Amino acid sequence: MSDAHFIRRAIDLAVENVRLGRGGPFGAVIVHDGVVVAEGANLVTHSHDPTAHAEIVAIREACRIRQSFELRGCTIYSSCEPCPMCLGAIYWARLYRLVFASTRDDAAEAGFDDSFIYQQVPLAPDARSLPMTNLLREEGARAFQAWRQSPGHIAY
Amino acid sequence: MSDAHFIRRAIDLAVENVRLGRGGPFGAVIVHDGVVVAEGANLVTHSHDPTAHAEIVAIREACRIRQSFELRGCTIYSSCEPCPMCLGAIYWARLYRLVFASTRDDAAEAGFDDSFIYQQVPLAPDARSLPMTNLLREEGARAFQAWRQSPGHIAY
Repeated sequence: MSDAHFIRRAIDLAVENVRLGRGGPFGAVIVHDGVVVAEGANLVTHSHDPTAHAEIVAIREACRIRQSFELRGCTIYSSCEPCPMCLGAIYWARLYRLVFASTRDDAAEAGFDDSFIYQQVPLAPDARSLPMTNLLREEGARAFQAWRQSPGHIAY
Repeated sequence: MSDAHFIRRAIDLAVENVRLGRGGPFGAVIVHDGVVVAEGANLVTHSHDPTAHAEIVAIREACRIRQSFELRGCTIYSSCEPCPMCLGAIYWARLYRLVFASTRDDAAEAGFDDSFIYQQVPLAPDARSLPMTNLLREEGARAFQAWRQSPGHIAY
């Protein structure tokens, strides 16, 4: 099966998701060695979950199936360029490769904030539209100290 | 209740999470009008879910309780500066404000990839460590066409 096959499947999932009224026009497919591991579509409005983007739904489902918090060697096909939240999730899941059809500009034209959030992420905290306060940094070190001293901790 | 009270609670959740062996040393609290709406801790390793960072766990729980995909007017307190995935989720959830204790540098020093992912997000797709391919962009437009033509779609 080719990249074109799987990216068309992701687009089909996006179209079907709109038809079913479950959420935004986005679909994703995770593939390993030419075999589909999991699929996802955007469920933000249907499931009252702002994190339920297609990529995150597919990653969570693939990890549930594999009982692993990593998806090394897998490719993710997304009907649209992932937003920063989903791109971050793709890095954390250690996915091997990403293929996407529409771009962040196409998403912006359809009324989605992907492009705006891409502009916000690299800004200094005090330059963002979101008010941010850094407080009690020294007390925060308690958590990392506990982590370092925890004998059986699983790094990720 | 003050910001210091809630950020200490987030740090306590992080320390407790390590003690319980459920995941990384991170905790988060979502507050509205001085009242805790939901709390979360990092469950990545325990729940086999790379997206189960403390902020995302807390956002999903708060949205479940409120039966809403938005948390307007709420503040999120995080034991550590959110990674790009969680920062994106905070924007999508329309949270009002963010307070954090440790920084991305503190997280990097403890072995977490937050800082690396912050470096990756603003790069051009072909400059990232993750191989990315843009394919069949014109076919991807099918999904947005379906969205525009869907009479009852809920924008977010």
